[in-house]
Amino acid sequence: MKKLTYGMVGGGPGSFIGDAHRKSINIDGMATLVAGCFSRTPEKCRQTGAELGIDPDRCYASFEEMAKAEAARPDGIDFVVVVTPNVSHYPVCKAFLEAGINVSCDKPLCLTVEEGEALVKLAKEKNLLFLVTYTYMGHVTAKHIRKFIADGKLGKIRTVQAEYPQGWLAYEGEWGGKQGEWRCDPKQSGGVNCLGDLGTHVENAVSRMTGLKIKRVLARMDKLVPGRVLDDNDMVLVEYEGGAVGTYWTSQVAIGHDNDLRVRIYGENGSILWKQEECEKVIMISRDGTIVERHRGNGGIEDCAAAYGRLPSGHTEGWLESMGNLYKSFITCVAAKKEGKPYEIDYPTVEDGLEGVKFVHACLKSNEQGSVWVDL
Amino acid sequence: MKKLTYGMVGGGPGSFIGDAHRKSINIDGMATLVAGCFSRTPEKCRQTGAELGIDPDRCYASFEEMAKAEAARPDGIDFVVVVTPNVSHYPVCKAFLEAGINVSCDKPLCLTVEEGEALVKLAKEKNLLFLVTYTYMGHVTAKHIRKFIADGKLGKIRTVQAEYPQGWLAYEGEWGGKQGEWRCDPKQSGGVNCLGDLGTHVENAVSRMTGLKIKRVLARMDKLVPGRVLDDNDMVLVEYEGGAVGTYWTSQVAIGHDNDLRVRIYGENGSILWKQEECEKVIMISRDGTIVERHRGNGGIEDCAAAYGRLPSGHTEGWLESMGNLYKSFITCVAAKKEGKPYEIDYPTVEDGLEGVKFVHACLKSNEQGSVWVDL
Amino acid sequence: MKKLTYGMVGGGPGSFIGDAHRKSINIDGMATLVAGCFSRTPEKCRQTGAELGIDPDRCYASFEEMAKAEAARPDGIDFVVVVTPNVSHYPVCKAFLEAGINVSCDKPLCLTVEEGEALVKLAKEKNLLFLVTYTYMGHVTAKHIRKFIADGKLGKIRTVQAEYPQGWLAYEGEWGGKQGEWRCDPKQSGGVNCLGDLGTHVENAVSRMTGLKIKRVLARMDKLVPGRVLDDNDMVLVEYEGGAVGTYWTSQVAIGHDNDLRVRIYGENGSILWKQEECEKVIMISRDGTIVERHRGNGGIEDCAAAYGRLPSGHTEGWLESMGNLYKSFITCVAAKKEGKPYEIDYPTVEDGLEGVKFVHACLKSNEQGSVWVDL
Amino acid sequence: MKKLTYGMVGGGPGSFIGDAHRKSINIDGMATLVAGCFSRTPEKCRQTGAELGIDPDRCYASFEEMAKAEAARPDGIDFVVVVTPNVSHYPVCKAFLEAGINVSCDKPLCLTVEEGEALVKLAKEKNLLFLVTYTYMGHVTAKHIRKFIADGKLGKIRTVQAEYPQGWLAYEGEWGGKQGEWRCDPKQSGGVNCLGDLGTHVENAVSRMTGLKIKRVLARMDKLVPGRVLDDNDMVLVEYEGGAVGTYWTSQVAIGHDNDLRVRIYGENGSILWKQEECEKVIMISRDGTIVERHRGNGGIEDCAAAYGRLPSGHTEGWLESMGNLYKSFITCVAAKKEGKPYEIDYPTVEDGLEGVKFVHACLKSNEQGSVWVDL
Repeated sequence: MKKLTYGMVGGGPGSFIGDAHRKSINIDGMATLVAGCFSRTPEKCRQTGAELGIDPDRCYASFEEMAKAEAARPDGIDFVVVVTPNVSHYPVCKAFLEAGINVSCDKPLCLTVEEGEALVKLAKEKNLLFLVTYTYMGHVTAKHIRKFIADGKLGKIRTVQAEYPQGWLAYEGEWGGKQGEWRCDPKQSGGVNCLGDLGTHVENAVSRMTGLKIKRVLARMDKLVPGRVLDDNDMVLVEYEGGAVGTYWTSQVAIGHDNDLRVRIYGENGSILWKQEECEKVIMISRDGTIVERHRGNGGIEDCAAAYGRLPSGHTEGWLESMGNLYKSFITCVAAKKEGKPYEIDYPTVEDGLEGVKFVHACLKSNEQGSVWVDL
Repeated sequence: MKKLTYGMVGGGPGSFIGDAHRKSINIDGMATLVAGCFSRTPEKCRQTGAELGIDPDRCYASFEEMAKAEAARPDGIDFVVVVTPNVSHYPVCKAFLEAGINVSCDKPLCLTVEEGEALVKLAKEKNLLFLVTYTYMGHVTAKHIRKFIADGKLGKIRTVQAEYPQGWLAYEGEWGGKQGEWRCDPKQSGGVNCLGDLGTHVENAVSRMTGLKIKRVLARMDKLVPGRVLDDNDMVLVEYEGGAVGTYWTSQVAIGHDNDLRVRIYGENGSILWKQEECEKVIMISRDGTIVERHRGNGGIEDCAAAYGRLPSGHTEGWLESMGNLYKSFITCVAAKKEGKPYEIDYPTVEDGLEGVKFVHACLKSNEQGSVWVDL
Repeated sequence: MKKLTYGMVGGGPGSFIGDAHRKSINIDGMATLVAGCFSRTPEKCRQTGAELGIDPDRCYASFEEMAKAEAARPDGIDFVVVVTPNVSHYPVCKAFLEAGINVSCDKPLCLTVEEGEALVKLAKEKNLLFLVTYTYMGHVTAKHIRKFIADGKLGKIRTVQAEYPQGWLAYEGEWGGKQGEWRCDPKQSGGVNCLGDLGTHVENAVSRMTGLKIKRVLARMDKLVPGRVLDDNDMVLVEYEGGAVGTYWTSQVAIGHDNDLRVRIYGENGSILWKQEECEKVIMISRDGTIVERHRGNGGIEDCAAAYGRLPSGHTEGWLESMGNLYKSFITCVAAKKEGKPYEIDYPTVEDGLEGVKFVHACLKSNEQGSVWVDL
Repeated sequence: MKKLTYGMVGGGPGSFIGDAHRKSINIDGMATLVAGCFSRTPEKCRQTGAELGIDPDRCYASFEEMAKAEAARPDGIDFVVVVTPNVSHYPVCKAFLEAGINVSCDKPLCLTVEEGEALVKLAKEKNLLFLVTYTYMGHVTAKHIRKFIADGKLGKIRTVQAEYPQGWLAYEGEWGGKQGEWRCDPKQSGGVNCLGDLGTHVENAVSRMTGLKIKRVLARMDKLVPGRVLDDNDMVLVEYEGGAVGTYWTSQVAIGHDNDLRVRIYGENGSILWKQEECEKVIMISRDGTIVERHRGNGGIEDCAAAYGRLPSGHTEGWLESMGNLYKSFITCVAAKKEGKPYEIDYPTVEDGLEGVKFVHACLKSNEQGSVWVDL
């Protein structure tokens, strides 16, 4: 495969997520960063570009300019990575899709269901590939669970217990830094904080692992830290099509939890327990109660998942490698498409991103009405 | 302290819980079993009595007879232990209270709020002591958490996540045995299965550890195993007085869980994580995120809790010892009261039992009405 | 079975182990304490006797008197429990054996190989039953491992890694109390501290679980806390008959460990990992690396071991229940023997106790000679 | 900092370690691979070069040629990465040092003490930088422990228990593949297998974390799998200067262990427990027994270590990131040296590599003489 090129919107000085996307793409070295609009401040943009060894001609003052210019170049970028705050995901993605450029966008996809539907439509019309970077679904073990359940090995799923607690916003007037500020600011985050950031991960993880479709939700969203304007603790009851039920809990005030996404899935023939902070292992319980622990790199992991591993068992892979797995799938598809070859999508797409937005909006509606069931 | 005597109603052949109460009382040897009505079948009753070395004259054919006869004896029992199926808790407890005999009753206290209120009233009128054996609250670590939070060390509690999953009733037409049968039979269990058995433990554990009072609940109760008549998986949202919120999950279909009561408490100044299956330890997280693990028998456990330990740290104490701790408190009080001495109640009482019944009924009502908020 | 009676030597005020033996016997209520020589101080002896409800006539001033008097009574004790400091195990056991009374003695059995051999001989001549209370081998999971390996399910054992670290004697001039004092006093403990107390447990656990016979040992015994006279940290290399090898580590200066006996056994067909502080579970790894966790009370535990469980899975059993299991076996045998019925010994005997003494002495010899191999 | 360039010797088709070095350098993108001698087969070498986008002119047929040619180029590589089987580490490193090129070599450094001393001398004479890639010491938590102990926070170290069990070579005639073959072949691995591969990691981890110097060792090296020519299970007793003692265990036949390097350090003021498979956390126990768990990315980690983290807490970093940290230090130093700026070495050097070789040879000698103490 010939190495591809990509550009980035966002990811300027102090951006955790932009740097993380770059590092994770670097691991496998399948694409090179050659263009960017890293910041709304031109100077900062050029500075980041210089640090990253980007040709100054390809450091753009605006994403609109970048989309047009790159689309016009014969050696224009193969895809763009969108890592701006949530509020600008939509216009940026739209601009690049309209310019005919494949898109990778951080989650949540956008702020409204209408925006999400527009992006789905546009990507389809333009026949472009669109990755939404639900990082945790890149884990080998997450991919394993998806295949294992799809093959019917747990039987009918009965209940799911999923949660994503963090503790970094538990403090009045402390912590959080730049990250915390924009997340808790309704203007930048789109009127939802915790559920938009963490709840979409939970929704996607459960949906992706189990294949369950949400029928309706009932949500209770709280602002537990005095003075907070947006939700920082959310509890959601879920009813899936087919009768399974679930509980989702997300929190940013759960002191002691770092980034503790956990999914527990109970079927008629067994259960699966998974924690992203210990993502090198998966606990699988069979119908007779036998508790089996499997490790990435060892036997017992589905082949299509195990193939993403880079290191032997016990040589731990983590967050960057998971994100790298998403990009490995996505870049492989972009390259195949470019060369007119067939490809198989094995990553969360713009359609998955839309599901997340729908989930958030159904929860917001349920909460506003006093925690009633709202159909998705 | 002079050794007391007690009687038992229930606990005949094949009864797990009766044997467990006897063994836990035996540990400290503070009371001797001298009377009983162990079974509704006189022959089985006498047989159990003989095996336990009970005087045949004190093996009674009915609990009514036993209550009257023991009340009339100069050496009558100091207290009765009620370990019958839930449906008969009320009449048995009532009979002994009316006969002037102190009562220890397994949870849940009874089937209806009216019954519960009647028992509270009767115990008060008769000035009798009444233990409801919420076993897990006897753990040294559970007592530690209660004191720690009561002293304000977590600050204002913000959210509680509690659950009690088991897997033993996950199977259609299998498992469960005698236990499973009566629990799933509406006539014997009082129209509620999982939430009555496990939900009351969760309600009591959270209430006892945190001191939080439930303002209202919203429940979703499911029958996930085909053919089941009563609930086997329950999800409850809780709003406490003062603004804290919580999620409770109980299940009997969660394959892989044995008896997995867990309580996680998040306050403004830190968190506490506790699992009854690993009850020798408690995880305490301070405001700055420092995760501290404490073990029974080591430093850092509140004195009033540590005093209940019998063995050095690492010499594990378990379920029988927890139940034994409840009895140690209760028997100490019964003995003190008998001798006219002052005593301090440090065990769950009939009032706590009533709270459990109220909780169950509010959940049943919420569920019937399609998961709406119901005040307690 | 008719309830038996027993006496106790040692176990006076402040004795942890005497109280623990009594409590563990109480659980199943198969024997009643009716006689004792609880302390070398007659007054303390009578006081403990009174607290325990012992007839003053059967509170003896010396163990010699007790052995003779009880042997002479028609209703004399069925067995004696010896819980004195190590140094007096031998004379006490000897006196009761000579008087024709069955013996339960705490480990280590005695101080010298000669003493141990004399006790073995005497017990045989007198045809008496002799339990050495290696508590941890009473665990259901320990019994399970013994059977599992005896049935060849791990294949040939290749290596064993066993350890028993504690931290309570890590401090100069602090902690330890009465316990610490006699253990570190050469006169009372017999010239060895940590290896005698903890090493014998390790030796017995490995031997009992695996059936391996030690061929030779190589020991390094250290006094790591300044001022200590006896060993507080011991490292032993072991070569077993048949070519397997092992490492044992015992320590009383390992801050952070409570009572952390762990055994890991590696065979050609799989491995077993066991920790006494989490003795309700056992980790079993099969030849292909599948890691399986089993819990007491659930499927997958050998029947002969599971039969000792008293409570359902997840209702934790601990140290007292383990000790109780030893007594259950022992008392069952004593009762059967008394009634002339056949019995099967399923507990550590005086022969096992002798093995422990031999192990300690071989290690002492190895260490004195600069850590050379010493045959057992 | 200007991006550097590097070359690689070894790392051809099927080489795990070569690919892993490249990926870990990629993460931070501080150096670009521009030259290589990836295989002893010229065709395979060119093929790997082509896949990696290396100019064919810089794909060399022999390492000797590569060292000379690169030294002669004005844009020659800034450093070479040596990832060949152990037996050729020495000649390759020597060639590049003699050519004046900085070296990064995988561990173990070389086969004999003489070779190691020669490399130390040569690096010094040539004033070149030399990284030995003891990967696990790149972990943030490993760096934290080193600083924590260096600052005296554990007080005097008393004992160390370290181990590195794996299970991948537990099988006769199975598994292991190309990796297993050369490791078990005396000609390619230099007469030692498990202790050379794993024991050097243990030696380095303990030495680097604690600062302890080994005074003497006593080793027992076994071949537990029938038919094996070289050691596959090693037990080592260690005496450090100053009186501390330790036990090291390494094994390749411990079924169920993937790559389970663990170090436990016990000092007079507390303990530290660390497992590389869970390297995002460290357990620290203070003098009073308080068990504290710290996570990379959270408070309580020494600043000089925390600075190496790339992601927030709970966004797991693993093996590649650890190796990347070694390269980050090394490349920073190489760049500073190139620009004539001061630099501080914060990575394992050729001197550390020599210590590992000395350790292995002392163990071999001890084992040959029947497990006697051998001075280092």
